[in-house]
Amino acid sequence: MWDELRPIGRTAGGYRRFAWTPVDGELRAWFRAQAAARGLAHEVDRNGNEWAWLGDRDRGDAVVTGSHLDSVPGGGAFDGPLGVVSGFAALDGLRARGVTPRRPLAVVAFADEEGARFGVACVGSRLACGLLDPERARSLRDADGVTLAAAMERAGHDPAAIGPDPERLARVGAFIECHIEQGRALADLDRPVGVGSVIWPHGRWRFDFAGEGNHAGTTRLADRRDPMLTYAHTVLAARKRARLAGALATFGRVAVEPNGVNAVPSLVSGWLDSRAADAGTLDELVAGIERTAAERGARDGVTVTVTRESHTAAVAFDPALRERAAARLGGAPVLPTGAGHDAGILSAAVPTAMLYVRNPTGVSHAPAEHADEDDCRAGVAALTDVLEDLVCP
Amino acid sequence: MWDELRPIGRTAGGYRRFAWTPVDGELRAWFRAQAAARGLAHEVDRNGNEWAWLGDRDRGDAVVTGSHLDSVPGGGAFDGPLGVVSGFAALDGLRARGVTPRRPLAVVAFADEEGARFGVACVGSRLACGLLDPERARSLRDADGVTLAAAMERAGHDPAAIGPDPERLARVGAFIECHIEQGRALADLDRPVGVGSVIWPHGRWRFDFAGEGNHAGTTRLADRRDPMLTYAHTVLAARKRARLAGALATFGRVAVEPNGVNAVPSLVSGWLDSRAADAGTLDELVAGIERTAAERGARDGVTVTVTRESHTAAVAFDPALRERAAARLGGAPVLPTGAGHDAGILSAAVPTAMLYVRNPTGVSHAPAEHADEDDCRAGVAALTDVLEDLVCP
Repeated sequence: MWDELRPIGRTAGGYRRFAWTPVDGELRAWFRAQAAARGLAHEVDRNGNEWAWLGDRDRGDAVVTGSHLDSVPGGGAFDGPLGVVSGFAALDGLRARGVTPRRPLAVVAFADEEGARFGVACVGSRLACGLLDPERARSLRDADGVTLAAAMERAGHDPAAIGPDPERLARVGAFIECHIEQGRALADLDRPVGVGSVIWPHGRWRFDFAGEGNHAGTTRLADRRDPMLTYAHTVLAARKRARLAGALATFGRVAVEPNGVNAVPSLVSGWLDSRAADAGTLDELVAGIERTAAERGARDGVTVTVTRESHTAAVAFDPALRERAAARLGGAPVLPTGAGHDAGILSAAVPTAMLYVRNPTGVSHAPAEHADEDDCRAGVAALTDVLEDLVCP
Repeated sequence: MWDELRPIGRTAGGYRRFAWTPVDGELRAWFRAQAAARGLAHEVDRNGNEWAWLGDRDRGDAVVTGSHLDSVPGGGAFDGPLGVVSGFAALDGLRARGVTPRRPLAVVAFADEEGARFGVACVGSRLACGLLDPERARSLRDADGVTLAAAMERAGHDPAAIGPDPERLARVGAFIECHIEQGRALADLDRPVGVGSVIWPHGRWRFDFAGEGNHAGTTRLADRRDPMLTYAHTVLAARKRARLAGALATFGRVAVEPNGVNAVPSLVSGWLDSRAADAGTLDELVAGIERTAAERGARDGVTVTVTRESHTAAVAFDPALRERAAARLGGAPVLPTGAGHDAGILSAAVPTAMLYVRNPTGVSHAPAEHADEDDCRAGVAALTDVLEDLVCP
């Protein structure tokens, strides 16, 4: 399976698999081909999520596994695809073991998990769960100004159809997502596979620093209102505050107007990604960063406006399902994570669990992201065990 | 003249008149029409500079005035065009005065002064003076990867023809550039017009901060090699060092890889524009900023590479011409500037002088750049006086 997937969306600087692009279409074609090769019933739901069914999908109490196929810009090969590939491989494993499932089984690939193109993560699962307004989703724009609605239409999906999908979710009895670990906890524990406990609350905030555009070669320093200074101060303050709070804060995306070498910028926009172990710490951290930005802005003659673009509350995966999976895997370690996942979104509607596969360096969202082949096989075996336990109790 | 020029390349956020674009073609058509309306002989030289001649251009000892028509992104209406419009208006003024010039006269519009598209300023005048290697110029690339050679070709100009033009320069006896002031010195002195003394030495340096791309939601702060931190620290240090040195330092352009909201960047490139009253101060300032960047980079696990992309030595305009112009204008104030100009480039080959027109706010390279109509008329009258003095001594 990996061989056909590997070349799709590969660039010199890692993978670039943005939602509703031609590359995304190739990934979807791969999914359809995998379903067809196994005689699974394929369907695309109203929100563009891909499903491959073994058994009667209308019966209810289904066991579903999968993840997503899209990537961040410059992403690695495993984040997302590992969960979809492992899902198909686990179905093969169940058949090889001669298992006759007593519940319907499905592999799913959710649409636009990374939010790399339109700025909102987990669009496919959020829409299904009613956690993203369809009108707002349709009007999201990419860096070229293309709306999500237009991008869907170009890709042959009807944007008018998107929205909550409670009947479909009601037919899912359990969702298990297998994912490469985005950290080094399993490497430190010397274990190939772990089970997820919680996802930290996290969010994205856009900081707009508005100053006054001017000539870099002639404007006296004292006459400037340079938003790059306020931005730079805020970047350093965010890091310091996050360290003191035992939390995470990152400015990874910047846009500058006019972005000319000899022009003092008129506007710098920086996106803050922040996460913490609990909601109180996160709120306090972001409020502190906003305060520092405003104080420095007052010194620089720069206006700071902060917009919360997305927010996800803390998620605790279903305790019963988590314990059952950990027990079935002979006491696999149970780990928290700071990363959002479709499983986190779905946990609002469906009992969910996650399995993590060891990542020796912990690198994620970058080309160096890696899992050893033996560990990937261990992940498939673990997923097969957990699915078998669920469909043949 | 302004009426036809005003709509060309105008956007919601100021002017965007990049070299060798269709907008640039419209500006060139405007120049040709102005020459034709006055019965001036029009030509485009090998480097794409536009000339409009009154009298025998081959005779030598010509008096030339003009500036440029291109702009920075988000630029104002005056930077460049004021000098070209004033040149044509001054020729009209000489005719209205019944002056019969004893020397050939020309209005010129130099190509690509701002360097906003290909990153090198004053391309047209640098090429003519042999200060920019034609091979290097042809291979310059814009943000979309288009080479200057390809852009010229698309615009109908032969890129093979570019290069030194000593014979043409030898026929120019004096060059006078009229320009909006990029500062508030004339406003502070309550004078509408001034004469240029020197241009500070200045340059552009690209700082590449290379770290390690990673997931913003899962990578422990201590495990990160985040180049955004090093960049931010360098921005603040550059400002502080420039203030202490009585010089200028600006980071106005940034590029981030992969520039994703939930990704620790792998690479941040920031462009430093720096200027000082003398070469020693400038060298020391930039060396100090590089040192600070490297020290902080060592702390952050980030490699810093600095590339000098352009450099212009200090320019002192021709003292005799400057004094003659100042005297003819009844003791106009004589002012230094931090901004580069085609006149600064040409001063290596031709006696040059500059006239500045008052800018009440000092704002430049931004939509708020402004000169009052009365001051523009005063600039035209001053230019007419200076040209008359040169062509009818």
